[in-house]
Amino acid sequence: MSRSLIRLRATIRDTFRTLEVPISPRFTPAKKYTYRTNVTNAAAGSQTLNSTNPALSFPCLDAREEKTATLRGRSLDTGPEPSYTSGDHLKHHSSEALLLDWGGALAQFDIAYETWGRLNESKSNVILLHTGLSASSHAHSTESNPKPGWWEKFIGPGAPLDTEKYFVICTNVIGGCYGSTGPSSRDPANGEVYATRFPILTIQDMVRAQFRLLDHLKIDKLFASVGASMGGMQSLAAGVLFPERVGRIATISGCARSHPYSIALRHTQRQVLMMDANWNRGFYYNSIPPHTGMKLAREIATVTYRSGPEWEQRFGRRRADPSKPPALCPDFLIETYLDHAGEKFCLEYDANSLLYVSKAMDLFDLGAANQTRTANLRQENESNRSDRQGISCSLTLPDEPYEEQQEVPSLSNPIDIKETSTPQDLVAGLQVLNKHPTLVLGVASDSLFPAWQQREIADVLRAAGNRSVTHVELGEDVSLFGHDTFLLDLEHIGGSLKRFLA
Amino acid sequence: MSRSLIRLRATIRDTFRTLEVPISPRFTPAKKYTYRTNVTNAAAGSQTLNSTNPALSFPCLDAREEKTATLRGRSLDTGPEPSYTSGDHLKHHSSEALLLDWGGALAQFDIAYETWGRLNESKSNVILLHTGLSASSHAHSTESNPKPGWWEKFIGPGAPLDTEKYFVICTNVIGGCYGSTGPSSRDPANGEVYATRFPILTIQDMVRAQFRLLDHLKIDKLFASVGASMGGMQSLAAGVLFPERVGRIATISGCARSHPYSIALRHTQRQVLMMDANWNRGFYYNSIPPHTGMKLAREIATVTYRSGPEWEQRFGRRRADPSKPPALCPDFLIETYLDHAGEKFCLEYDANSLLYVSKAMDLFDLGAANQTRTANLRQENESNRSDRQGISCSLTLPDEPYEEQQEVPSLSNPIDIKETSTPQDLVAGLQVLNKHPTLVLGVASDSLFPAWQQREIADVLRAAGNRSVTHVELGEDVSLFGHDTFLLDLEHIGGSLKRFLA
Repeated sequence: MSRSLIRLRATIRDTFRTLEVPISPRFTPAKKYTYRTNVTNAAAGSQTLNSTNPALSFPCLDAREEKTATLRGRSLDTGPEPSYTSGDHLKHHSSEALLLDWGGALAQFDIAYETWGRLNESKSNVILLHTGLSASSHAHSTESNPKPGWWEKFIGPGAPLDTEKYFVICTNVIGGCYGSTGPSSRDPANGEVYATRFPILTIQDMVRAQFRLLDHLKIDKLFASVGASMGGMQSLAAGVLFPERVGRIATISGCARSHPYSIALRHTQRQVLMMDANWNRGFYYNSIPPHTGMKLAREIATVTYRSGPEWEQRFGRRRADPSKPPALCPDFLIETYLDHAGEKFCLEYDANSLLYVSKAMDLFDLGAANQTRTANLRQENESNRSDRQGISCSLTLPDEPYEEQQEVPSLSNPIDIKETSTPQDLVAGLQVLNKHPTLVLGVASDSLFPAWQQREIADVLRAAGNRSVTHVELGEDVSLFGHDTFLLDLEHIGGSLKRFLA
Repeated sequence: MSRSLIRLRATIRDTFRTLEVPISPRFTPAKKYTYRTNVTNAAAGSQTLNSTNPALSFPCLDAREEKTATLRGRSLDTGPEPSYTSGDHLKHHSSEALLLDWGGALAQFDIAYETWGRLNESKSNVILLHTGLSASSHAHSTESNPKPGWWEKFIGPGAPLDTEKYFVICTNVIGGCYGSTGPSSRDPANGEVYATRFPILTIQDMVRAQFRLLDHLKIDKLFASVGASMGGMQSLAAGVLFPERVGRIATISGCARSHPYSIALRHTQRQVLMMDANWNRGFYYNSIPPHTGMKLAREIATVTYRSGPEWEQRFGRRRADPSKPPALCPDFLIETYLDHAGEKFCLEYDANSLLYVSKAMDLFDLGAANQTRTANLRQENESNRSDRQGISCSLTLPDEPYEEQQEVPSLSNPIDIKETSTPQDLVAGLQVLNKHPTLVLGVASDSLFPAWQQREIADVLRAAGNRSVTHVELGEDVSLFGHDTFLLDLEHIGGSLKRFLA
């Protein structure tokens, strides 16, 4: 860790050197600047040698402008936007329309996926692994793409997702940009990029698309549905939508419904992105992508992914270059770390995918009231759509069983219900999972999906009658890595998962 | 509370109505849109009726553009920027230069202040009240400015800061924009607005300016130095800089040094502001102010000022208008709340003030190593400056006693010290306060200045030998208002303060 810090620090210094930005000579201003107190009304805003103090320099803005210029200079044939691929993967094309929860539709769609291990003859050893917000299907290296995946150490022979035993499938979510249909894909209706004509998505929509893939692979039932973060939402949602097709569920650092603080944190990310003029209301695909907004959004996200105590240990109050005077641009080591995280991400992921997938997370709510509302809306949209020529036959009927709604307290107008008033709404919503062995894993230092949300899942499942709930909470003595613990802690996250699946 | 929510919701609805933004008819798209799967290569980015789904609308961007247009339309005589005044206040002009910790200087400066109660004959009943980041000197209404102040209920006859007993002084910090010299002031050296030619400030610089005011008022010694948030930093710093001139100290939701997580949170705010093109590297005073960046910064700040559990109770998952389809613009009630908070603030405070004062908070560190470094730097700058004509006589000699440095472990190169390694550095730094009665107040639900930081202050003072430390921590059963508790909780914050001062 300290070695990578040293590298980071060196990179920062090199950046300053490369840019050749004049750094304010703040340490010896007296020799260069003199007071003149009687001059007034000089042209405001212009630089003058006679100011009391020198103007600050802004290497972070210089770097931003340089990046914009570089992107503007790219060939218009290839388009200035980066291509969002994470390497070689499999792809399933579904030519049947996918009706979405909020009334939109995908007339057809692709779903990118990768697999590890071997499907047994009875097709009973399948683990569907769900990803976090910005991840691709590349959870582990493959023959055709040897690059390490985002859960490289968690998958493999003898690993928690043991490829000697299981056939592991990981997909890129619809709405994403790593091979599955998303806002950067072309709308088959008119050949144009969807951009913000892409329909609003839900976590359940993503799961329905995944089960289309399972249909195609003729896999009736999953051994387990596993995921962390947004994937922890999906792994639960899969069980709720297809209770007969899911054997067991592992949900790590996830929740049963998003709470307002995490909505607020995602809101600020979406807002900074949407306020980047280059975002252009989503229509940037032939132009400069909103790299500044993406960088800022990722910096905010990075703050929510880690924890204060970790940074206290790792960065403390160290400045990137203590020999320089303080600056408004990144200065403390923690700032250069965030800057680096944002910079690394800003062209690696599609901005519109970030907006739609982030919004889907906000909308996530497995409570009965929300399920009822969605079911009614889907039914309405379905009958609207079935009136239309050429489309009625390709409609997907909702797969989810809504029987559990009879156990919901009578909801004359579900929209008006106070969703936070009591977890009874969640108990009713998760009733269908009252027999599924479920592992619920939480991390005390997580501020984005705080540990009370995982306790809520466990409590709700138990209240629904489920006697096979394993709830594990990693204390701050075990992990200070906050939300990101699921990516880093092979021993405790991986260990719990392995024991649960065994 | 629910009444204000209803009002907020009504305001949002009115806003939507006023803007007359076409809202996507997401609930009945089937009647308006048809699939056409064979059209390709239509002009990308253009709107077409034939897309599978309608384009989303963006009322938040419409509102932003409207605001920019309004600001552009303002008379150039008065300047498009707002005037940052909080009403009538007193002002002290110091014509002596103020040498700053990081080598800059203010050749002269104003400090705005207000007072309540009466100064007694022995001038022994003075309480200096320090503000948070963005507050003015208007802590309480006055005859000449009857508008309620930011601590209206905490000051007055019989109130915690009892004006029957105490003479309360509150100043606007230098660097601010409410009457004290800051980046929006004119540099006497050339008559131009400082903008980002304003020098880097520290909390201690602000305190030194305050003590200039006390000198002017011929107040030798404070009965108490009191403050919350950034004011909690200042109230401690006042004691460290002028131990003989401060009687007792109350520091509420403050810290002895900033930690990396709070630096990170402020970093993201500064970054979104600086990336607003209208910020223009600080030179926006004759142009459109960076209202978008300010709004975004305030939204992020607002997230850090409150707590998840409060929002869970207050907003839950309620949407601003459940009859509308989900939107990428503010949608959930928590989002409209943040949007409103940002909107309200974006023209009320100077953007450069936010940057400089926020940076001063990051730089705050009362550890001995940092004090030594600063002392050396000040000495160096002082001798540089004393070489110069016409300025040597107006220099301010550092007032702080550096005797405690002898108790610091030998620091051959203080810049290289690991500042986080041990609180011994803080124990040495706060040694000078080993006799001052001190109240340290913290709030368990505070994520910006977490409760461990106040425990740290208390522990460090006790380790330094102080036997008059009162440490109070308000649990989540008492307050869920997070960092903002100090503004809201008259009973517990005010009550503890009253008992301490009595």
